[in-house]
Amino acid sequence: MPTFTPNYLLDVCTKLFAAYGAPEGEARIAAEELVESSLLGFDSHGVMRASQYAHDMREGRIRPGSPITIAKQTPTTALVDCGFNFGAVSARAMVEVACEKARGGVACVVSQNSHHVGRLGAWVQRIAERDLIGLAFVNNTHGGHSVAPWGGREGRLGTNPLAWAVPVAAGSTPIVLDMATCMMPEGKIRVHLHAGKSLPEGIIVDAHGRPSTDPRAFYGPPRGAILPFGSQYGYKGFGLALLVELLGGVLAGYAASQPQSHVNGLCLIAIDPEAFCGAQTFKALVEDLRSYIVNTPLMEGFSEVVMPGAIDFRIRERRLREGIPLADESWRLIVEAAAQVGLVV
Amino acid sequence: MPTFTPNYLLDVCTKLFAAYGAPEGEARIAAEELVESSLLGFDSHGVMRASQYAHDMREGRIRPGSPITIAKQTPTTALVDCGFNFGAVSARAMVEVACEKARGGVACVVSQNSHHVGRLGAWVQRIAERDLIGLAFVNNTHGGHSVAPWGGREGRLGTNPLAWAVPVAAGSTPIVLDMATCMMPEGKIRVHLHAGKSLPEGIIVDAHGRPSTDPRAFYGPPRGAILPFGSQYGYKGFGLALLVELLGGVLAGYAASQPQSHVNGLCLIAIDPEAFCGAQTFKALVEDLRSYIVNTPLMEGFSEVVMPGAIDFRIRERRLREGIPLADESWRLIVEAAAQVGLVV
Repeated sequence: MPTFTPNYLLDVCTKLFAAYGAPEGEARIAAEELVESSLLGFDSHGVMRASQYAHDMREGRIRPGSPITIAKQTPTTALVDCGFNFGAVSARAMVEVACEKARGGVACVVSQNSHHVGRLGAWVQRIAERDLIGLAFVNNTHGGHSVAPWGGREGRLGTNPLAWAVPVAAGSTPIVLDMATCMMPEGKIRVHLHAGKSLPEGIIVDAHGRPSTDPRAFYGPPRGAILPFGSQYGYKGFGLALLVELLGGVLAGYAASQPQSHVNGLCLIAIDPEAFCGAQTFKALVEDLRSYIVNTPLMEGFSEVVMPGAIDFRIRERRLREGIPLADESWRLIVEAAAQVGLVV
Repeated sequence: MPTFTPNYLLDVCTKLFAAYGAPEGEARIAAEELVESSLLGFDSHGVMRASQYAHDMREGRIRPGSPITIAKQTPTTALVDCGFNFGAVSARAMVEVACEKARGGVACVVSQNSHHVGRLGAWVQRIAERDLIGLAFVNNTHGGHSVAPWGGREGRLGTNPLAWAVPVAAGSTPIVLDMATCMMPEGKIRVHLHAGKSLPEGIIVDAHGRPSTDPRAFYGPPRGAILPFGSQYGYKGFGLALLVELLGGVLAGYAASQPQSHVNGLCLIAIDPEAFCGAQTFKALVEDLRSYIVNTPLMEGFSEVVMPGAIDFRIRERRLREGIPLADESWRLIVEAAAQVGLVV
């Protein structure tokens, strides 16, 4: 698999999006977030998405340059109309709104008309960098309903990830949890399909509602479904997925049962520890918790206990040194998308 | 197993707590919450706790009559000093504060010096009844650290449940998720111990960090640990348990690694849909989601798809008709506690 330097990919993606009509600044933001996701090992939300974004721009599903406006607000809440701009551009704007409104207290900000927001952890990490606690929930609209409710066999929910991050001591590794509320994201099932490999048990059911390990049984036709997270206690993952739908979709005024023209619904909650124990105390106590946790004696078969996100930040260090690997096909699609607008990369 | 009417148990518990020195109103609140938990089938958080509460009152760990005060606040946040009153009394007060501060926006309320808050779902359900979205997180302090972090073999976290509830259409069944972030609450492991039964695989490790199905391997000595929720993806349950610790404990200024004199740390977040799509629209869309979900075609082996909490409310209907079953030993302990203060029940 060829590898590329982050700067090169940043340049390619920025130029690609600009060539498809995005204002320079927005093209750059969308490119930065894709490269950052790739650096952290979130390849399915990384640079491989660039050709799809270009395609979506041509089809009018991403509308760079369109204003991001506040449709409704109070001192602590906002409903943000993302105008189908890049999801990264609108999510960054939402983070700004959430941080400003949360200062000294708490805020909740919800999107309308958002495209794909990418790696969810990015937004809570950014909130945590401002010394605020960040929680995030992102749903998928009707077309992305690939996850069955507990006991069901047809998709009624998206992979519906949730994420959180907290402020840490200066210089410490960020602490970021970013988890799908289903057993396996669709992208990973596709990897198994393309590799001709079986899935582990308990990930999907076929169209008849029978357990299957064959990725083709998920894609059909007829289409199967991904199971909610939690194996024999999948009602918990289902319950978390519902919360994501309620905060990311319903709260913004969308009917889950109906097709929508947007892609994701994002809900951000930001909390200022200054309103509670104080930001400095909070950060010190986070480090106390980190130390208490990572020094736990080990379970059989494990070599360490790590905080959420720690592995991702190690991958980032390595990829900064060694470059970002990109599948041949992903690179080919980027080159092809560029060529279609006369851009040579 | 003998069964009792809810009213009888309410009367017994109220009199018991009053006989141990609680003001009548507070005794009644604590009793109401225990009976309600029992009605809903949450027996481990129900009337069986009454004798323990009496014991804790005698030992000064529960201090009825002590004031519940706001230690620090902003228009949208509060740090509430629960004064070691009954957890039910202080949690009810926290719900009032959260609902008042969230009206028209969002609020976050965190406890200090809280005793056992009981069934977590009770507090989000109460928030939802006021047409607000409720989220709740409750940690266990150091002494209750029975859950290992992912990869560890010693308890560093509590069973750390989280809960949510949303407003529903008038007359509809409440929707309430209340879930532990570990594989199995300690109370259920104790049931297996007393019954001489093996646990399912993947619930606990012994003191050497080896998987075990023997409940004695958890209790020791030497003591084992409960695994975080999620089986092969237990890092997700671990990540959720950490969030609960951060919001319920760290945010209130407590060091997770240190012993504390309180029992639970409660964090409530309340969100007013009126600040977003509007409360009436929100409730209508919740019913759209409910209908979309419960009408999903079934997976093999299932007879229905239900929303979170639906089964609990059916149990409540049945127990209202048929009474609340209580183990002989639980009843004996209540009678004994009553007799110690000259109360005949």
